[in-house]
Amino acid sequence: MLEHFKVPSDIAVKVPVDRLRAATEAVFMKCGVAEEEAKLGADVLMFADQHGIDTHGVSNMLRSYVANYNAGALNPDPVFSIIKETPSTAVIDGGGGLGLMTAPKAMDIAIDKARATGAGIVTIKNSGHLGAAGYHAMMAAEQDMIGWCMTAGGNSMIPTFGAEPKLGTNPIAFAAPADKEPAFMFDAAMTSIAGNKIGLASRLDRPLGAGWVANEDGSPNMDGGAAANFAANSLRMQLPVGSTRELGSHKGYSLGVMVDILCGQLSFAPGFATQALKRRAHFVAAYSIDAFGDVAEFKSNMDGMLKGLRETKPMPGHDQVWYAGLPEHYEGIKRGEQGVPLHPEVVDWFRSISAEFEIPFDLVEA
Amino acid sequence: MLEHFKVPSDIAVKVPVDRLRAATEAVFMKCGVAEEEAKLGADVLMFADQHGIDTHGVSNMLRSYVANYNAGALNPDPVFSIIKETPSTAVIDGGGGLGLMTAPKAMDIAIDKARATGAGIVTIKNSGHLGAAGYHAMMAAEQDMIGWCMTAGGNSMIPTFGAEPKLGTNPIAFAAPADKEPAFMFDAAMTSIAGNKIGLASRLDRPLGAGWVANEDGSPNMDGGAAANFAANSLRMQLPVGSTRELGSHKGYSLGVMVDILCGQLSFAPGFATQALKRRAHFVAAYSIDAFGDVAEFKSNMDGMLKGLRETKPMPGHDQVWYAGLPEHYEGIKRGEQGVPLHPEVVDWFRSISAEFEIPFDLVEA
Repeated sequence: MLEHFKVPSDIAVKVPVDRLRAATEAVFMKCGVAEEEAKLGADVLMFADQHGIDTHGVSNMLRSYVANYNAGALNPDPVFSIIKETPSTAVIDGGGGLGLMTAPKAMDIAIDKARATGAGIVTIKNSGHLGAAGYHAMMAAEQDMIGWCMTAGGNSMIPTFGAEPKLGTNPIAFAAPADKEPAFMFDAAMTSIAGNKIGLASRLDRPLGAGWVANEDGSPNMDGGAAANFAANSLRMQLPVGSTRELGSHKGYSLGVMVDILCGQLSFAPGFATQALKRRAHFVAAYSIDAFGDVAEFKSNMDGMLKGLRETKPMPGHDQVWYAGLPEHYEGIKRGEQGVPLHPEVVDWFRSISAEFEIPFDLVEA
Repeated sequence: MLEHFKVPSDIAVKVPVDRLRAATEAVFMKCGVAEEEAKLGADVLMFADQHGIDTHGVSNMLRSYVANYNAGALNPDPVFSIIKETPSTAVIDGGGGLGLMTAPKAMDIAIDKARATGAGIVTIKNSGHLGAAGYHAMMAAEQDMIGWCMTAGGNSMIPTFGAEPKLGTNPIAFAAPADKEPAFMFDAAMTSIAGNKIGLASRLDRPLGAGWVANEDGSPNMDGGAAANFAANSLRMQLPVGSTRELGSHKGYSLGVMVDILCGQLSFAPGFATQALKRRAHFVAAYSIDAFGDVAEFKSNMDGMLKGLRETKPMPGHDQVWYAGLPEHYEGIKRGEQGVPLHPEVVDWFRSISAEFEIPFDLVEA
């Protein structure tokens, strides 16, 4: 991720992944989530925290999950039901539970169908936030499959030429395995920047970048500046990737619509362009590589491609070219050894929620 | 499409679609293409020409197809073979024929599989240019299915932070049907601008825009200017959508990689990051809406969504917000009535190729 969003190293508190995982599981269970589900939800969050996807780790997300459980907006013990299925497809009702736990179960179904028919396509409605979509896509890659995950919901992206939001940030995640190279794992919002990064920039007192949000009248803001100078609803005035029509914002906008069609429309979720939880919907898919050819040959070919990409001659000022999933791979090794750098404010939140929930606090040595 | 790329109306020669279609079929047949195939190829080109997708119509494409047939780089009578298949997937070898004709046959297979299992995913290698990818995606939408089409090949997109091209422009097309509203039909390169638009800008003597291509050293050019001021290889120095890392070019770059994985890697096409024809590969997929729920309900929901998008409050200077497929729909009606506006230079080419091929020339009244 950009340096811009990193917790400054002089104030970061490094917490071992195992401790952060245990604390997260305990918090989920105090919200009424069953142990196995709590472990699954914590695993999705740890994936983000360990791999440097800080926007989707505990810092940004766990508080809102707790608040939503407490407010009754999320069901800690949801009924997961298959509404309709065919040999290669299924539609799931998530029962109003957290998507962190719904999406992996849906991906398991997609993987099973892909094993049987070559492809599995599963849509999910009535499901809360699913964390880092890359986690779910990677589930398929780990089974030698191509993995997709998309999620739609909220109302924060402004269509090209528009002056009001009509879509969520609508990320696309896509993963494909390689042999010796780390897997290709792409996961990004179809807005020019992830919504959570605007929140993160505010917490870290960093400026908003050019091309991230629109001005009050909908015109793209191409100057950026201190968050305080923007409308309070900046989170709901986000520009599609491309930022302006001239730079290609109609592509980000249309990809956002595509994601909403695959998630929301294809799961028959009600309430397009509303903030309704019931509209929050997901899409996962798995294509079995084995159905297309030899898996070992595919992975070897992927090694060649990914190595070719990272060995691209770099432009001035850069040591190397990256591919999606490569920085996360290195960060995962580093944080596995050194711990997850949390903002002290996040550690304080864990301390206070542990007191409130009457669970031990041991993220850091006493 | 942007006004920028339109043939100026004072010089445009309006040609009825039927005449343009007949002339195109005749040219294909003189290249050795069988009548049925020639009709199919002309239909794909007419889709682009009638709907205003001028980059992928006869003006830009037919000449290069003829040159490739004449040079033996394209096979006019290819063997189309299924290399491998499962209930929901297939891999096709296009036999070195033109993708215009290969892709619709592959989509027919995907549609049949989707009818049987819910989803059909087909990859194609060893196939030439497929024209406007939207045509193939729309084939599924017309059968009440979600349609995808992607194509990878060539070597023109520079990875973020890179100084040399490693990917094609790698377009994604996606279509979904509605009831009363025109279908959603998205079709766009994952570079900030389609490669053909750079050629079109040169022909029309229009400047290159900011954020389209890189400077000689790979750094993004954010100023634009006369095409003559850019390196001769501008077509091979294209920036991903997002243009710079700060504006999100890693998203366009990674989507480009995704397209190459689905087309090239999943069809086991050899020669990543080369210009080889054998590397040119495609991906088509169809998801049967019926497998997910009631088709009439889906289409009615789509009407609500698409109407909601086009009725978005516009930003200053714009009358309305569009969705992908809507401008093409209106242009299709207009050109169906008034004809396709061709540059006189294109009409001249038809006149000379007709003489060379000894076929009647009747695009315009004598």
